[in-house]
Amino acid sequence: MMNLKVPVIIVNYKTYSEATGKKAVKLSKTAEAVSLESGVNICVAPQAADIASVCDAVSIPVFAQHVDPIVPGSSTGHILLESVKEAGATGTLINHAEKQLKLRDIEAIVARTREAGMVSVVCTSNAAVSEAAAALKPDIISLEPPELIGTGIPVSKSKPDAVTEMVTLVKHVNPCVVTLCGAGITKGEDVAAALKLGTMGVLVASGIVKAKDPRKVLMEFSEAITEAL
Amino acid sequence: MMNLKVPVIIVNYKTYSEATGKKAVKLSKTAEAVSLESGVNICVAPQAADIASVCDAVSIPVFAQHVDPIVPGSSTGHILLESVKEAGATGTLINHAEKQLKLRDIEAIVARTREAGMVSVVCTSNAAVSEAAAALKPDIISLEPPELIGTGIPVSKSKPDAVTEMVTLVKHVNPCVVTLCGAGITKGEDVAAALKLGTMGVLVASGIVKAKDPRKVLMEFSEAITEAL
Amino acid sequence: MMNLKVPVIIVNYKTYSEATGKKAVKLSKTAEAVSLESGVNICVAPQAADIASVCDAVSIPVFAQHVDPIVPGSSTGHILLESVKEAGATGTLINHAEKQLKLRDIEAIVARTREAGMVSVVCTSNAAVSEAAAALKPDIISLEPPELIGTGIPVSKSKPDAVTEMVTLVKHVNPCVVTLCGAGITKGEDVAAALKLGTMGVLVASGIVKAKDPRKVLMEFSEAITEAL
Amino acid sequence: MMNLKVPVIIVNYKTYSEATGKKAVKLSKTAEAVSLESGVNICVAPQAADIASVCDAVSIPVFAQHVDPIVPGSSTGHILLESVKEAGATGTLINHAEKQLKLRDIEAIVARTREAGMVSVVCTSNAAVSEAAAALKPDIISLEPPELIGTGIPVSKSKPDAVTEMVTLVKHVNPCVVTLCGAGITKGEDVAAALKLGTMGVLVASGIVKAKDPRKVLMEFSEAITEAL
Repeated sequence: MMNLKVPVIIVNYKTYSEATGKKAVKLSKTAEAVSLESGVNICVAPQAADIASVCDAVSIPVFAQHVDPIVPGSSTGHILLESVKEAGATGTLINHAEKQLKLRDIEAIVARTREAGMVSVVCTSNAAVSEAAAALKPDIISLEPPELIGTGIPVSKSKPDAVTEMVTLVKHVNPCVVTLCGAGITKGEDVAAALKLGTMGVLVASGIVKAKDPRKVLMEFSEAITEAL
Repeated sequence: MMNLKVPVIIVNYKTYSEATGKKAVKLSKTAEAVSLESGVNICVAPQAADIASVCDAVSIPVFAQHVDPIVPGSSTGHILLESVKEAGATGTLINHAEKQLKLRDIEAIVARTREAGMVSVVCTSNAAVSEAAAALKPDIISLEPPELIGTGIPVSKSKPDAVTEMVTLVKHVNPCVVTLCGAGITKGEDVAAALKLGTMGVLVASGIVKAKDPRKVLMEFSEAITEAL
Repeated sequence: MMNLKVPVIIVNYKTYSEATGKKAVKLSKTAEAVSLESGVNICVAPQAADIASVCDAVSIPVFAQHVDPIVPGSSTGHILLESVKEAGATGTLINHAEKQLKLRDIEAIVARTREAGMVSVVCTSNAAVSEAAAALKPDIISLEPPELIGTGIPVSKSKPDAVTEMVTLVKHVNPCVVTLCGAGITKGEDVAAALKLGTMGVLVASGIVKAKDPRKVLMEFSEAITEAL
Repeated sequence: MMNLKVPVIIVNYKTYSEATGKKAVKLSKTAEAVSLESGVNICVAPQAADIASVCDAVSIPVFAQHVDPIVPGSSTGHILLESVKEAGATGTLINHAEKQLKLRDIEAIVARTREAGMVSVVCTSNAAVSEAAAALKPDIISLEPPELIGTGIPVSKSKPDAVTEMVTLVKHVNPCVVTLCGAGITKGEDVAAALKLGTMGVLVASGIVKAKDPRKVLMEFSEAITEAL
């Protein structure tokens, strides 16, 4: 059983300047403060080189953005699950739209993540791909229609049928999988809409990282979750 | 002009268990101790997630094993030059045999590394590829014939002509480029042979990381360099 | 509904010298002769550059080995579904162990193949990956454990449980999908074993292409199928 | 020594509908007719699946758009040099902007192409990459700034300095290499400008394939070459 409290907000830092290095640590402290204040589980996903410093600075769950389908050995330049785990990561994103993976590698990484006692979050682009991913038994599947990423057009309001279909298909294959959605989420009402469609939270990036006041937006998201419960 | 003292020993930690997490820090302290004692420049190249902790622990130059050909922005799961620089890295390996890159991406990464004031080390597989790489004006080119990597058969003794040809071709295209060689280097005499062939040092991995006593081998390498000068 | 007679033997020519150019045409004529004589459906999968000449020479179904996830336009060097269709192909292999694809691209190619009225054969490496692939609704799924490919150790005799599990999981997700298995198939009894495990045929390569007498082996395979019916 | 008459016009068919299947054959016949009439060497580069039918229909040189860095064997779905050679190809494009390759693979493919007695055309994105490519000793290097591809803004008129620099750097490394340029070429005067900058012809795609009257444009290009000689 997955060791991660839901509903959940996962903040993907991507490779944004606003969330690299010291700024990654600062934003993570903000996320932690909002999480403590609101009681809502907020997780952050910084770049590989920032995981250790973020984990040193905060107690909220930290995710890697990607790990490679490798075992320890001769894989110069690749990201080893064990390296992000030892740096303090709780889990990892897998197959993000910006780092898509081969089907077989997704299967291998999900299996390795499970063996390591870590949380796997497989990102998917549509309902059919989500159903396929569910067969691989990850902890979490997050639907992110690529055409909406970074647009500010919320998936939960512009594509509600796609989200509902994803939730239904995933649950049919594997009722244990937690579903999230993402892309274009910038307001509390987008988060509320996501929960109404049957998901257990959101995967968000620019909506927080590039917000003028990330603390305020995270608080708005958290309140939307608290009210929905 | 490159800001890195030569001759140099660069130790690539790959994704070896023996050099991940706390073990990466410990091995880096050993490398630093030998460097201080011998006066020879020893650099280490840990995994992305270990760069920050290694840089916190030691003062010797630290290299990334790879950076992606990206600028800050939406590149989830990729390795941003700025992230490893802020974590403390002095430079980066580029195009290692285990993480080969497109020609155009090598050019882009070398250029970004230069702009960032960092040291670029392009790895190559033979003399023709080295000559091509030299046209891209990296700081260092390291020849590593892939068939010798991890074998313990030293490039500097089993393929001296390939090393000499590489040094000659690289110097012809660009006399400013420092040349190294690697693969199969396990003894001081392999390092001495590398210098005799005209290189300014070695790129080594298992020869140090998997040695019973890495300190002893690093000291042997350093003495070979001191004697050769 | 898929327009392909089962049980079926699909012969993958890979990039073998023995099945390139004129030899691809010759082997296809042999396959056609055995198919006509035995009444068993035998299909061939030559290289892209050989599809047109093979289709000109024989009337049995011809498959591409791969198509890229692209639409007509600016994709120099990629393989367009329309190009292999116009050359005469009936369908295509997708995600072969030697040409693995991203999950999202498999979904896109299966959908394009369906729209084009062509037959999709998704290759998979284990039962979990097969179950995932079934959600994408291809016509055929062929299990080929990569560790057995080219070994002569038949999947149907050495890994019967893996084949049975694959058939069960695929049928559970989508009962319309035809299942095949492959890897190490060299004898009639390997084919008979595959059918007994619930598959509708085999995907074979070196077992036919590199056989001293491909006609004889194809006949043996066909008889095993006829007897099993 | 390269067995290809220069100046030369190479028409890349990409994966355009207008140049797939029967339309590829028709356009190739047009190119042949113009070549015969004008005396200018015009070559065509159709998709892999169209090479055989194009080579059956015309006598002008035919190029593959890409071949993979493989030898005959187990490489399902890849494009084998021998397969396009036997289908009738005279040479191959390598590293087109839409099918970029690893540095080491470019080196391997150029070497294989040379051994097979075929013509290698390495595409490059800027002058530094062209200089690097020249060290690999291909027959032809064609500069195509990616930002101009398909725009109708001719490289030879909008970036004359980049073309001149490319020609100079390539000649310096290897005076035997023939240089071409491409991107945005749609008029005879663009071709004339390319020759004036020191190249020996053009690599063109949409300018011909998507022209209302490809015959007329090809004739205009050919006349520009004849006048320049």
